[in-house]
Amino acid sequence: MAAPSHYLERVTREFSKLPGIGSKSASRIAFHLLKLGKGDIDTFIRSITDLKENIRFCSICGGISDSETCSICSDVGRDKGIICVVEGARDILTIEAAGGFNGLYHVLSGLISPLDGVGPDDLNINKLIRRCGAGNLSEIILALSPTIEGDATTLYLASLIAPIGVSITRIAHGLPVGSDLEYVDSATIAKSMEGRVRI
Amino acid sequence: MAAPSHYLERVTREFSKLPGIGSKSASRIAFHLLKLGKGDIDTFIRSITDLKENIRFCSICGGISDSETCSICSDVGRDKGIICVVEGARDILTIEAAGGFNGLYHVLSGLISPLDGVGPDDLNINKLIRRCGAGNLSEIILALSPTIEGDATTLYLASLIAPIGVSITRIAHGLPVGSDLEYVDSATIAKSMEGRVRI
Repeated sequence: MAAPSHYLERVTREFSKLPGIGSKSASRIAFHLLKLGKGDIDTFIRSITDLKENIRFCSICGGISDSETCSICSDVGRDKGIICVVEGARDILTIEAAGGFNGLYHVLSGLISPLDGVGPDDLNINKLIRRCGAGNLSEIILALSPTIEGDATTLYLASLIAPIGVSITRIAHGLPVGSDLEYVDSATIAKSMEGRVRI
Repeated sequence: MAAPSHYLERVTREFSKLPGIGSKSASRIAFHLLKLGKGDIDTFIRSITDLKENIRFCSICGGISDSETCSICSDVGRDKGIICVVEGARDILTIEAAGGFNGLYHVLSGLISPLDGVGPDDLNINKLIRRCGAGNLSEIILALSPTIEGDATTLYLASLIAPIGVSITRIAHGLPVGSDLEYVDSATIAKSMEGRVRI
């Protein structure tokens, strides 16, 4: 059949472009929007326009911020001696949600990926090297995904930072907590054997 | 931690109010929106405002439409002798997508549900009775969900339409195609036994 409404079809198409939303979910959302009042719709739209107009990136770490410096970089209670390097600004939220880390962050804004045409110069690496060189740093934690791109970027950064004399670590790769050994893939098992620790 | 941005938090909260979107998906979408250009964002927002400003409900069946009468009610190729009664406008899309039905529709805009304070007067029933009384109808198909509310509404509508002398049917309740008898719940098994057909 032809779609009952061009407008409904357009909203459905726009929502299905968002990550994690298929055409069925998008259609469900479009019908949900139809039921909302004008006030709710205005609030929804305003939240998006405000985001685009007002959001900034922290001048120190590159994370999301409402001001020049983000709340983590300007928090006097955080340990300025440790920097955790992440791929994207969202990873900061993930690590913060897990708790336990009280240092600073540095957002690379991507990973080295020659196939996608992303080289070291496309990433926020120069600023990281400057932060490392500024002294007072006891450790750099590389918290990148255990993928080919993540591993390549980790090795590249380690080779750059090593001469500065800062201690470099990488987050552990191994069995996820709560997993069943029987169902874990062999690459992960091999990594967890390789990275075994003395108890 | 405090959220890194009030604006990001607001967008995340707004998206997580939509059906089928949890807080993690909403956060992922918010970060996705950050990466989009102004043009894409404008198109996205315009699709929503256009929907709210321009969408109409068909004056005959109550379905979604861009004009006074929807594309199904105004389609001369459809069988005007059969009306399929559905709970919501979205059900029309679902039945059309399945194919095979070439009649008209009637949207009730809800189901009778005393617990939620929804009685027959809150539904689009009077117009349905008028359509039934207008003659030329050979069949009314009640295509409501097999829930307590759906069954109650089906029985209520059947009692109203029967005196008019139109043939009334209900869509079949039974085993979903492709299901395994072993894993189907007993209420569905009972319904499928009750509704067995001669082969």
